[in-house]
Amino acid sequence: MAGSRYEYVKKFELPDPLLMGTFLVLRIDGHAFHKLSEAHDFAKPNDERALQLMDHAARDLPLSKCTTLYNRRQSKILTTVTSLFTSSYVFNWSKYLPDKELKYPPSFDGRIVMYPSAKEIRDYFAWRQADTHINNMYNTVFWALVLQGGESTTQAHATLRGTVSSTKHEILHSRFGTNYNNLPARYRKGSILVREQVVPDASTLLAPGPERAAGSPDVENSISPELTKAQFTVELLHGDIIGDEFWDQRPYLLAE
Amino acid sequence: MAGSRYEYVKKFELPDPLLMGTFLVLRIDGHAFHKLSEAHDFAKPNDERALQLMDHAARDLPLSKCTTLYNRRQSKILTTVTSLFTSSYVFNWSKYLPDKELKYPPSFDGRIVMYPSAKEIRDYFAWRQADTHINNMYNTVFWALVLQGGESTTQAHATLRGTVSSTKHEILHSRFGTNYNNLPARYRKGSILVREQVVPDASTLLAPGPERAAGSPDVENSISPELTKAQFTVELLHGDIIGDEFWDQRPYLLAE
Amino acid sequence: MAGSRYEYVKKFELPDPLLMGTFLVLRIDGHAFHKLSEAHDFAKPNDERALQLMDHAARDLPLSKCTTLYNRRQSKILTTVTSLFTSSYVFNWSKYLPDKELKYPPSFDGRIVMYPSAKEIRDYFAWRQADTHINNMYNTVFWALVLQGGESTTQAHATLRGTVSSTKHEILHSRFGTNYNNLPARYRKGSILVREQVVPDASTLLAPGPERAAGSPDVENSISPELTKAQFTVELLHGDIIGDEFWDQRPYLLAE
Amino acid sequence: MAGSRYEYVKKFELPDPLLMGTFLVLRIDGHAFHKLSEAHDFAKPNDERALQLMDHAARDLPLSKCTTLYNRRQSKILTTVTSLFTSSYVFNWSKYLPDKELKYPPSFDGRIVMYPSAKEIRDYFAWRQADTHINNMYNTVFWALVLQGGESTTQAHATLRGTVSSTKHEILHSRFGTNYNNLPARYRKGSILVREQVVPDASTLLAPGPERAAGSPDVENSISPELTKAQFTVELLHGDIIGDEFWDQRPYLLAE
Repeated sequence: MAGSRYEYVKKFELPDPLLMGTFLVLRIDGHAFHKLSEAHDFAKPNDERALQLMDHAARDLPLSKCTTLYNRRQSKILTTVTSLFTSSYVFNWSKYLPDKELKYPPSFDGRIVMYPSAKEIRDYFAWRQADTHINNMYNTVFWALVLQGGESTTQAHATLRGTVSSTKHEILHSRFGTNYNNLPARYRKGSILVREQVVPDASTLLAPGPERAAGSPDVENSISPELTKAQFTVELLHGDIIGDEFWDQRPYLLAE
Repeated sequence: MAGSRYEYVKKFELPDPLLMGTFLVLRIDGHAFHKLSEAHDFAKPNDERALQLMDHAARDLPLSKCTTLYNRRQSKILTTVTSLFTSSYVFNWSKYLPDKELKYPPSFDGRIVMYPSAKEIRDYFAWRQADTHINNMYNTVFWALVLQGGESTTQAHATLRGTVSSTKHEILHSRFGTNYNNLPARYRKGSILVREQVVPDASTLLAPGPERAAGSPDVENSISPELTKAQFTVELLHGDIIGDEFWDQRPYLLAE
Repeated sequence: MAGSRYEYVKKFELPDPLLMGTFLVLRIDGHAFHKLSEAHDFAKPNDERALQLMDHAARDLPLSKCTTLYNRRQSKILTTVTSLFTSSYVFNWSKYLPDKELKYPPSFDGRIVMYPSAKEIRDYFAWRQADTHINNMYNTVFWALVLQGGESTTQAHATLRGTVSSTKHEILHSRFGTNYNNLPARYRKGSILVREQVVPDASTLLAPGPERAAGSPDVENSISPELTKAQFTVELLHGDIIGDEFWDQRPYLLAE
Repeated sequence: MAGSRYEYVKKFELPDPLLMGTFLVLRIDGHAFHKLSEAHDFAKPNDERALQLMDHAARDLPLSKCTTLYNRRQSKILTTVTSLFTSSYVFNWSKYLPDKELKYPPSFDGRIVMYPSAKEIRDYFAWRQADTHINNMYNTVFWALVLQGGESTTQAHATLRGTVSSTKHEILHSRFGTNYNNLPARYRKGSILVREQVVPDASTLLAPGPERAAGSPDVENSISPELTKAQFTVELLHGDIIGDEFWDQRPYLLAE
């Protein structure tokens, strides 16, 4: 059939496998979200409901260790996940922001970065959380100066130019009576979706059959294979991921 | 600041520039659209409104020759465009299918293929249209057998196994009184969004100033640069793109 | 066998196909050839015998259009050709420089660049020849100033700083009685190895068998397929490849 | 100058950085070495002098951990190293095989494979040594059957078809009085060039100056930084690299 004459063009598709054995970070960034925030009148410096919508979209992604997904074809994995995130964001908009009509289709870009070892993965997440902290502290003081302090945005930028972290804490505290550390963790730490290992309730592990109910001492306790296999749920956290505690408690995350 | 200790992880991002001077095809495919069609009860074999939604989403994409977009970074271009298509699809769903609630977020995958020459680009589009034809003819007869002919889907597949094009035409004609060639071009040819050159109306080109109105012979006719620069609109077509006519009429499409 | 437990490591080899349909340039550069020239006392500014050795090594490479070589695997093609060039250079050293013992193993690096169209390939070679011209003119005047004019190398660089082409011509002519354009084309244009089409001598095309010798009228003249197929030799030229003539005379070079 | 009009073609060179933080294997294979062995009448199944020449060429390579070599540009590193190996092989041929004239330029191909972790690197080398063992055992028995046993090569292949390791040992032992394990380790294990840490002689560490010779108690013993910095030599081994011992003794090899 005529189709076959043209099918040779398929051969121009180049393979793009991700290197096996590496940890993969898939990063998604909003496109022109400053404009989106303005257009939809998001609360400053943080709109809790808009952030919850982001968390929801992230939760819809397949959070799996399955490193053989789509045969590790980079374009396929990257676009499928970015598309699903986008779709969920638009689909769920009205659940989180029922009073605001979405005015135009928002979009995101994505990229995949490969990291050879656990150290780099930890440092990647530390980098993101440190960035979140720096940006949120700046934005928090900036909008306090503007919204509560009556400064223009130009003035507020000038006020903050060159200030160190302790000065920003001090401005917040002395002028606006706000203790930065008491602000919601979601704003200060960001959102972390993590697979949590479900420790089965001990009482469910031992399902005594009739003999054991009868106290028969020669029957060994048995744990069914399904129950001993680790089980996971995905949880939303807003805690510290720079220190060791988060990682020490979840050794399976970086297990190779 | 603490951020900088971790910033080295940015260096693991690998460059992924697209080769300059090539024609780029960005192909977007629906993920599990068979299931989506079932879940939303799309008309068989073609749901016109669902196809119009696709056309709308495609029209929202930047259709530009601008080959320096995002510095030709593959991941950036690919994910931005795939995300925008997805977003527009979900955003506009209710305009085209107001009586059907979207039940879950649909997703798409994307890929970019580079073609060195105009010949391959033409063959790429010829391949897609030939494929559209083959699939649509099969689906048209198949669903006629099922919906009008009362065959089971298993029977219908068996009826069609090994049949050539002329046999399918004949089945449609003799058993269902349908002339395939009279079916909507949208189904038979697919949708083509193309930049059309706007030929400015001659009467608008010469905007005579007062002197010229006075017939002053020494004033040369002048055409303003903006008007002589080619202007484009994006049009939706459902015609043949395998033959020469489409391309001959639009030499600017493949101009290098 | 034990080997199989470890064979999974083969899967870490990533595919690296070159894009089909592109023109490939494989560029080889000498590593630290300034030092090699010093160590072996090459003539300044050009050592004809050392250049002939380069030409010989290039001639040993497979000069074929065969774009399916090694399945277009980049590393395989690139290293095989670079290795063969290196090997031939060392192997043939003593033929061209019998009075100079090669003191250590010289090395080269290679790279492959893909060009989508004929225009870029022509411009690539134009770039290389323009570069050859600029460098050779500079070096020719520089070494005339040093070797014949008695300037130190520092003085000679200072003399030439900021001079345009015509000034360099003039220095050569007025101070050293040298007309640059009369210098060997090899130095001014570089070396071009090109496949030349052999036009078979008409007298060899008709090889009459016994019947035809006997004048048998019913035997048609036949041209053997091998003779009509274009035949090629590889020739060494030192002419202009920036203008059209070289390319117009060899349309098969850029035929797609 | 004219050169600049064409210089845009440089932009078609695509970046090809190797992923940071990975272990790099650079593998070099001889091209058509079966033919080279025949043409130069190499001893069967192993030609010790030809193997020594290989070892020499490998020793000429830069064996460094320096992961920033050439900015990790794959083509540059790969071709430079492959070229240097080739060059050394040809350059040193006559030192190892003074009675055999090299008849034509031998060539090699190269590739780079990235491994994310130490485990994979160990398995890579285990794979190569297991392969060496399998091939050498086969070749040893094969050539014993042919050269000592009078079988044709066809017969010898047939004799060996499907035999396991123990059978091959037995054939060697019973028919040819050869204990495979007594053959030279170079043939059974291959050649390993490894950086060995030089443990400085304790007596050289404390180089007392005049004051200390005088016993001045307030002068602290000082160890010069150069001496305490680990120092390395490159050694040629033919031992086991599949087990732990080799790696346990050289923890610096896989240190990240």
